[in-house]
Amino acid sequence: MPKNLIVEIAFDMPRLEEKMLAKAAAVKGLEVKLTNVRQQAFGLEKPSIDVSLVRCVSMYSAVHTAALREGAGVRAVNSSSTILYSGDKILTVSRLKAAGLLLPRTAVGLDSDAAWKALEKVGLPAVDKPPIGSWGRLVALLKDLEDFKLVVEHREMLASSHMKTHFIQEYIDLPNRDIRTLIVGDEVVAAMYRYRPSNDWRTNIALGGEPAPAFLNDELIEISLRAAKAVGGEVVSVDVFETVDGSYLVNEVNGVPEFKGLMKATSVDIPEKVVNYVVRSARC
Amino acid sequence: MPKNLIVEIAFDMPRLEEKMLAKAAAVKGLEVKLTNVRQQAFGLEKPSIDVSLVRCVSMYSAVHTAALREGAGVRAVNSSSTILYSGDKILTVSRLKAAGLLLPRTAVGLDSDAAWKALEKVGLPAVDKPPIGSWGRLVALLKDLEDFKLVVEHREMLASSHMKTHFIQEYIDLPNRDIRTLIVGDEVVAAMYRYRPSNDWRTNIALGGEPAPAFLNDELIEISLRAAKAVGGEVVSVDVFETVDGSYLVNEVNGVPEFKGLMKATSVDIPEKVVNYVVRSARC
Amino acid sequence: MPKNLIVEIAFDMPRLEEKMLAKAAAVKGLEVKLTNVRQQAFGLEKPSIDVSLVRCVSMYSAVHTAALREGAGVRAVNSSSTILYSGDKILTVSRLKAAGLLLPRTAVGLDSDAAWKALEKVGLPAVDKPPIGSWGRLVALLKDLEDFKLVVEHREMLASSHMKTHFIQEYIDLPNRDIRTLIVGDEVVAAMYRYRPSNDWRTNIALGGEPAPAFLNDELIEISLRAAKAVGGEVVSVDVFETVDGSYLVNEVNGVPEFKGLMKATSVDIPEKVVNYVVRSARC
Amino acid sequence: MPKNLIVEIAFDMPRLEEKMLAKAAAVKGLEVKLTNVRQQAFGLEKPSIDVSLVRCVSMYSAVHTAALREGAGVRAVNSSSTILYSGDKILTVSRLKAAGLLLPRTAVGLDSDAAWKALEKVGLPAVDKPPIGSWGRLVALLKDLEDFKLVVEHREMLASSHMKTHFIQEYIDLPNRDIRTLIVGDEVVAAMYRYRPSNDWRTNIALGGEPAPAFLNDELIEISLRAAKAVGGEVVSVDVFETVDGSYLVNEVNGVPEFKGLMKATSVDIPEKVVNYVVRSARC
Repeated sequence: MPKNLIVEIAFDMPRLEEKMLAKAAAVKGLEVKLTNVRQQAFGLEKPSIDVSLVRCVSMYSAVHTAALREGAGVRAVNSSSTILYSGDKILTVSRLKAAGLLLPRTAVGLDSDAAWKALEKVGLPAVDKPPIGSWGRLVALLKDLEDFKLVVEHREMLASSHMKTHFIQEYIDLPNRDIRTLIVGDEVVAAMYRYRPSNDWRTNIALGGEPAPAFLNDELIEISLRAAKAVGGEVVSVDVFETVDGSYLVNEVNGVPEFKGLMKATSVDIPEKVVNYVVRSARC
Repeated sequence: MPKNLIVEIAFDMPRLEEKMLAKAAAVKGLEVKLTNVRQQAFGLEKPSIDVSLVRCVSMYSAVHTAALREGAGVRAVNSSSTILYSGDKILTVSRLKAAGLLLPRTAVGLDSDAAWKALEKVGLPAVDKPPIGSWGRLVALLKDLEDFKLVVEHREMLASSHMKTHFIQEYIDLPNRDIRTLIVGDEVVAAMYRYRPSNDWRTNIALGGEPAPAFLNDELIEISLRAAKAVGGEVVSVDVFETVDGSYLVNEVNGVPEFKGLMKATSVDIPEKVVNYVVRSARC
Repeated sequence: MPKNLIVEIAFDMPRLEEKMLAKAAAVKGLEVKLTNVRQQAFGLEKPSIDVSLVRCVSMYSAVHTAALREGAGVRAVNSSSTILYSGDKILTVSRLKAAGLLLPRTAVGLDSDAAWKALEKVGLPAVDKPPIGSWGRLVALLKDLEDFKLVVEHREMLASSHMKTHFIQEYIDLPNRDIRTLIVGDEVVAAMYRYRPSNDWRTNIALGGEPAPAFLNDELIEISLRAAKAVGGEVVSVDVFETVDGSYLVNEVNGVPEFKGLMKATSVDIPEKVVNYVVRSARC
Repeated sequence: MPKNLIVEIAFDMPRLEEKMLAKAAAVKGLEVKLTNVRQQAFGLEKPSIDVSLVRCVSMYSAVHTAALREGAGVRAVNSSSTILYSGDKILTVSRLKAAGLLLPRTAVGLDSDAAWKALEKVGLPAVDKPPIGSWGRLVALLKDLEDFKLVVEHREMLASSHMKTHFIQEYIDLPNRDIRTLIVGDEVVAAMYRYRPSNDWRTNIALGGEPAPAFLNDELIEISLRAAKAVGGEVVSVDVFETVDGSYLVNEVNGVPEFKGLMKATSVDIPEKVVNYVVRSARC
């Protein structure tokens, strides 16, 4: 390990994950710098930081923090490109498809009129998401055209152009769960099922999804690593659907992954894995 | 030329530029497909298109169109990455700085509090922009702290997180003009001065800036090509400031460049240059 | 008629209604002043206008235009108070209830949490509207709690506090239609049914609702006049639901009523009625 | 006093004022009901409340709470009309002008184009406010046309139509202060100067304005009472400018007045005055 490897943990809203990462880095003997990105100005001069672990909840704060560190000559984990490619679902599917991964049937409408045509391509029932967003927010299950009309009308009122964009995928009727894997470097370090709560069709932990350890087979490992690689991800999570015919479809990649739920489900010490990777990759 | 090279011109609001490109492509014998991205659904299956010239005015429509074409195996000019890197000013400076180009003194605040510190770093007078935006919109000249307070208060009311981000640069007191160059492939094909109008401090043509032909020296050519390369740009414009000590600072890069003004100023047939490049690069 | 009665027709987006009103006023020998409220400044000095017919589509432009005319000593039809009381559905029910009129079961939540409690009070199926809005926009039919969750999540993203407010009423399962009456002064001058279109549960003409002449009985006349009076309305439309037990419930009052559909359904010359009323009431 | 007078204190964000009002009411022997309007549903059935003191910070929450109470047969102080007339600056000047009070020179533009004409009417320097808003927020001092351009551009980006409306008044170059009076019923119970802080041109206490006791003469009393009456106010504050020629101009009326600053400056027990008024007026 280089002497005095200085690791920044850049955050906007500190969660348990960031505290655990800071602790693991300190235990490992690294110098830790905690940066609240909402409280400090970023210049382009090189700061005394070797690696920045970008952990902002706001997608654009994460992208911009990574980019500003990169511009100043500091390695960002994940890189600004990875955070972008995984944070915007359209960029994600573009990368995943180009990498040959299997996806749910997908169509995109960049405006309301186009959205109707996109839904026609995908068929009902479908899932309609804005390209940007976390924790299942504004992710709508379309059971019929009235659901869709309601979603389109509301989204039209939103100021952001992102919100007027409809990312539509066939609804995969999960066996009551989906799978999340966590990749650190070239390794899948943990996997869990997220079981659908009783009062929501979505499996997000933030909405009440229940984590449980998942069995990792070779196919799941290969898909996870390929998905991570498709977005250039170093520390990312990958969400996978199981289908009735036994194949796996990649749903999403997360470039600033939460991992409380994964730790609860699997007892893997994820912060240690991340810190070890940061040290290992800095050596090279 | 390959038989039947099919070129898509993807637009949201058709401008003179898109019509000229379509005509130049037809003259060259290409098959032209005009796509209004607001009226059609994008799937991920390969369409009968070889190259997509992405010409959307909305930055995110441009990024998403390029990405959706790339995901479906179609080359996009510019690529989704280029459009992102040049469309978001923070990503742009990150790339330009990492590439060793000279920039105006820059600092970024991701929130209002941070913005005050960013302004302190840069000093007054300064220019404050949101990271996303075109035609000089919401670009504010800060002469004093009251100007800044006003900008911060208004930006806080805007829903988009981008608008709460302050990209602040020293105000370069131009000799009444800036320079715009247009790069196609590896060549700088045109350059103009944009003279400041009488009723605005900004030089944007949309705000009344007056185009005039500019002299291209080796340094300007080199800087332009390096800036284009920094964002992976194939057809981009680069905005450059002249300083009192005779050096050049790169201000912005545009990944969906307008070029009416440039054609008026220089008489270069830009659509032909672009179409020739598309054909030439498709051959390789 | 007073000599030289000067009538202003104040509009933001001129529709057929405004043109017909202008023509009817000219035929009647009035001096007509057309005012595009988006193009002119309002001062508080008295203009050469006797009455202002406020016909702005934007509710707040209508309110402000009426108020600015009133402040300058010009009678506005409708008054700013009437436009407010009828334009904001919460103010409307407040007035209608205080006046003893029958309404659908109603509850209001000023925020998302409160909205869940409001829905509990009303029960399913229900109709959820923002307090401000026209043409059925964002009016949602809640068949189940998933519909409601979707509406609440989308509304929370909207910047305006109005949009976070949920005005919830029991869903009246109309006999495929509702009734709209038009009141001018103390007279109900026209009435129509609006038949539900095949592809929407709402009856708004803008959404495809089909107008047909309606039979006016004494009860309907009395209810219409009392509803108009409750908001101080001079020229307003009133929307009424029929219930299975034969009673009438007042749904909405419109202070800047469109009347194209009514004219088509009933052949009543509404512009003439309005102009006559303006002249008659100016005399007093 | 009637037995068991039940007073509701309706709030969204409880401030010191609401706590003091609750305490004063309890001391006076009233039954106090605290209502967080964001946590409960409002129906139209009569609740066990005699008077509702409406103390919501959000203007529309205050208006809607008052209206919902009125609809259910409960007296609201202030009434929904008063809160509207004082909460929307255009409605305020309309009422004040019609009541013959002196105002700063005022013009309104309902859109950007119109705003330029409104500024022409008023001249520079001027003050530009959105019609709705508190604590001086988005209130801009226009020293020159560049300030104005900046304000107009930013306001155009805001989704709300209110924000696109420019309420423009001549800038009254105060003797470093303005005057705030508080009216309870027919009495002016307190008055203070608000001295401009060193780092802002606005005198709002929230922005650092310094309160000091003010001398109340007959003219100031008369103007305050007339302004309160113009909006039907029972418990309101009135902001007054002094001019160089010794006359008073009414600036604003506040229908949900804060009074911490006034109590600090004058030692008047304002909560007691308000509670006494509520009891006194309930008797009638």
